Amino acid sequence: MTYERPNIARMTGYTPGEQPDGGGVIKLNTNENPYPPSDAVMRALQTIDGDALRRYPHPDALAFRRAAAELHGVEADRIIATNGGDELLRLVITTFVEPGKPIGITRPSYSLYPVLAAIQDAPLATVDLHDDWSMPEDLARQWNDAGAQLAFIVNPHAPSGTLYGVELLKQIAGAFAGVLVIDEAYADFVDPDLNYSSIDLTKQYDNVVLLRTMSKGYSLAGLRFGYGIGSKGLIETMTTKTKDSYPTDAIAQALAGAAIGDQPGAAETWQAVRGERRRLTAELVTLGFGVSRSQSNFVLATIPPAVAGGAKGLYEALKSRNILVRYFDSERLTDKLRISVGSPEENTALLKALRELM
Amino acid sequence: MTYERPNIARMTGYTPGEQPDGGGVIKLNTNENPYPPSDAVMRALQTIDGDALRRYPHPDALAFRRAAAELHGVEADRIIATNGGDELLRLVITTFVEPGKPIGITRPSYSLYPVLAAIQDAPLATVDLHDDWSMPEDLARQWNDAGAQLAFIVNPHAPSGTLYGVELLKQIAGAFAGVLVIDEAYADFVDPDLNYSSIDLTKQYDNVVLLRTMSKGYSLAGLRFGYGIGSKGLIETMTTKTKDSYPTDAIAQALAGAAIGDQPGAAETWQAVRGERRRLTAELVTLGFGVSRSQSNFVLATIPPAVAGGAKGLYEALKSRNILVRYFDSERLTDKLRISVGSPEENTALLKALRELM
Repeated sequence: MTYERPNIARMTGYTPGEQPDGGGVIKLNTNENPYPPSDAVMRALQTIDGDALRRYPHPDALAFRRAAAELHGVEADRIIATNGGDELLRLVITTFVEPGKPIGITRPSYSLYPVLAAIQDAPLATVDLHDDWSMPEDLARQWNDAGAQLAFIVNPHAPSGTLYGVELLKQIAGAFAGVLVIDEAYADFVDPDLNYSSIDLTKQYDNVVLLRTMSKGYSLAGLRFGYGIGSKGLIETMTTKTKDSYPTDAIAQALAGAAIGDQPGAAETWQAVRGERRRLTAELVTLGFGVSRSQSNFVLATIPPAVAGGAKGLYEALKSRNILVRYFDSERLTDKLRISVGSPEENTALLKALRELM
Repeated sequence: MTYERPNIARMTGYTPGEQPDGGGVIKLNTNENPYPPSDAVMRALQTIDGDALRRYPHPDALAFRRAAAELHGVEADRIIATNGGDELLRLVITTFVEPGKPIGITRPSYSLYPVLAAIQDAPLATVDLHDDWSMPEDLARQWNDAGAQLAFIVNPHAPSGTLYGVELLKQIAGAFAGVLVIDEAYADFVDPDLNYSSIDLTKQYDNVVLLRTMSKGYSLAGLRFGYGIGSKGLIETMTTKTKDSYPTDAIAQALAGAAIGDQPGAAETWQAVRGERRRLTAELVTLGFGVSRSQSNFVLATIPPAVAGGAKGLYEALKSRNILVRYFDSERLTDKLRISVGSPEENTALLKALRELM
C-alpha cells in the first residue's frame, strides 16, 4: 500500500551533484569553495566541549545572528539562521505559499526550486529568461497574473553566473504582489567594483527575503548553515512559528559565527576565485567555448558545435579522467556544462584535459 | 501587509524549554542527558579537517546509517538520518499527510505535534488517554473514523514516562489505516529487564516509522541528529523526495557515528539515569508527590494539593533558586511538573530545595 500524498507520488526528488567517496577526484561540480575555511573556524572547532554537545543549542542561533546583523547593518531580529540555505528555501514556501497556489521562478534557475514547489503541491509560474539570461521586463506582471504568492530570483543567476542590478530587483520587488526571495548563495563572489548590495531592499520592501549561505563564500558546505534577511514581519513568522524547534546545531552555530567574524579570511578566497574565474573564462573562450560573464564561483560553458558527443559526451569524458563538472539534462542547458572555479591547479588540470579531448 | 498563509496566521509556534545563557543553573527542564557524550565523540571531533567542512556532506549520512543498521539489525535503506528527531516528525507529516486531513495524537503528548500539524494545515484527531496514561482500546478505530492519515505515539510516553508494550503497539499498527509514527526519543532509558524492542514492527507492518534520536540517549542534544526506521517504501519516499538536499552536516554525521558505535559508553549513562530515576521517584513520593512510573529520563510529579501556589508556584519558586523544571500550562498538566533526571548532585539539590519549599 502507498501512503505518500498524491503530489509526492507524482514528483521526482532533487539530484545533488555527485560526491565521490575516494580522493584523487578534481571536483568542479557542486560549486564548493576550493580553499579551506578560515583558521578562526578551525580554532572554534577546538573549543567545543561535551557540555555544548549535551545541551540543546540556542533555538535561534542568537550569537551568530548578532554577528551577521553587524556585518549587514540590520537588526538581529531581521535575520533567521537555517540548516543551510536550502532550509530557508523550504521555509519560505511552507510559510507563505498555500498548496495549490503558484510559485514564480525563472527558467533556467536552481533545480531545487521546482522540487520544493512540488513537495508543497504548488504549481510553477515559470518565466523564460532571454537568451542572454536577462529577465523579461514584465516578469513581476507575469508572476502576478499567475497568482504567484512567492517567487525566487537567484542572483548572481545560476547556472549562468549573470548578475542582475539592484535597480532591477527594486522594480520587481515593488511590482510583485507576493514574497520575493533573492537567493544570493553566490553573492560573495561578485566583483566588489560593482558595488552590489541589496540589503536596502529589505528595508524598503516588506516582501523581500535575501538568502545567504556559509557554504560557498565561507568554505563551509559541510556545515549546513545559511541565513535569511528580511522585514521583521516575514522573519518573525518563520522564527516563531514555522522553523524547526532547533534547526542549527551548537557546533555549526559556533563555527559559522567564527567564519562570519573573519571577513578578511573569507574575502581572500573570494578574490582568488575571481582571479581564477577570469583565467578560466578566457582560456575556455580560447578553446572555442561560449562563456557567459559570471559573477559567481562557476562558469557556464557552451560546447562548440564541432565537439563530438556534445556536452554530455564531454562531461563523461572528463569524468573518466576523474574530473567532475555538472551536466544538466534540462531544456536550454543540454549543450552546456557548469564548471565550478577550482584552485589554480584544478583549473589547469581541467583545461589540459579539455585541450586533449577537443 | 501580511504574506503568511491563513493557517500560519492562526497558529502559535512551539515554545522550547528555557535555555539559560549563564552557568550556575540546575537544568532539569529539557530532558538532556546529565552525563557528557562518549570519549569516542570527542575524539571524532578532533579528526574533523577543513576539507570535510569545505565540501558538501554525504546527502544521506550513509556511514551513520550503516552503523545504525547494524545496531538494529535492519538494512541501511530502511533508515533515514535527520536533523534531530524533530525533523523526522516534520518530514513524515510533509510526506504522508494531505493538508486538511487529520493527524492522530493522544492527549497529553509531545507539545510539538500540534504545532507541526498546524503548519501543514492538518486538523488533529485527539484521543484522550485514561487517567493512568494508558491508551483507550479503540484508539486506532477513533483515528480511522476521523480519517487520520498519520498518527503519533510517543513511547515511553511524554510527559508521563509510561511505557506501552510492543503487543499493544502491534495491535494499533495493524488496525490503523495510516502511517503510525512511534516516537522513541526516550527508549534508551527503558529498563533492559523489560526487553522492550519494537524493531520487528517495522518488518511486520509497512505503515510503521520508529523515531530515534541521539539527543537524549547519547548526550548529543546540541548536535541535532535523529533517525527513522521503517519499511523500505516509507523511508525511500522521504529519502529520495521530501527531505532537504543535505539535512545533516559532516561534523554531526561523524560524531553521531562515533556515538552510536560506542554502545557501552552510552549504556553506562542510561544505567546511571535509571538509578537516579528510582531515587528521585522514591524521594518525591516521600515528599507527598504523585509520581507515575517512568521508563524515561524524566518523571511527571503531581503536586500535593496542600502546596500553596500549586505546580506553577512551585516551578517559579524553584526557578528563583536557579533550578529549572518544566511546567505545562495545558489541560491535565496544570497540577504537575515534569522533572528531568539530573546527575546525583543535581537531583539532591532539587530535593533539598523542594523540602525547604514545601
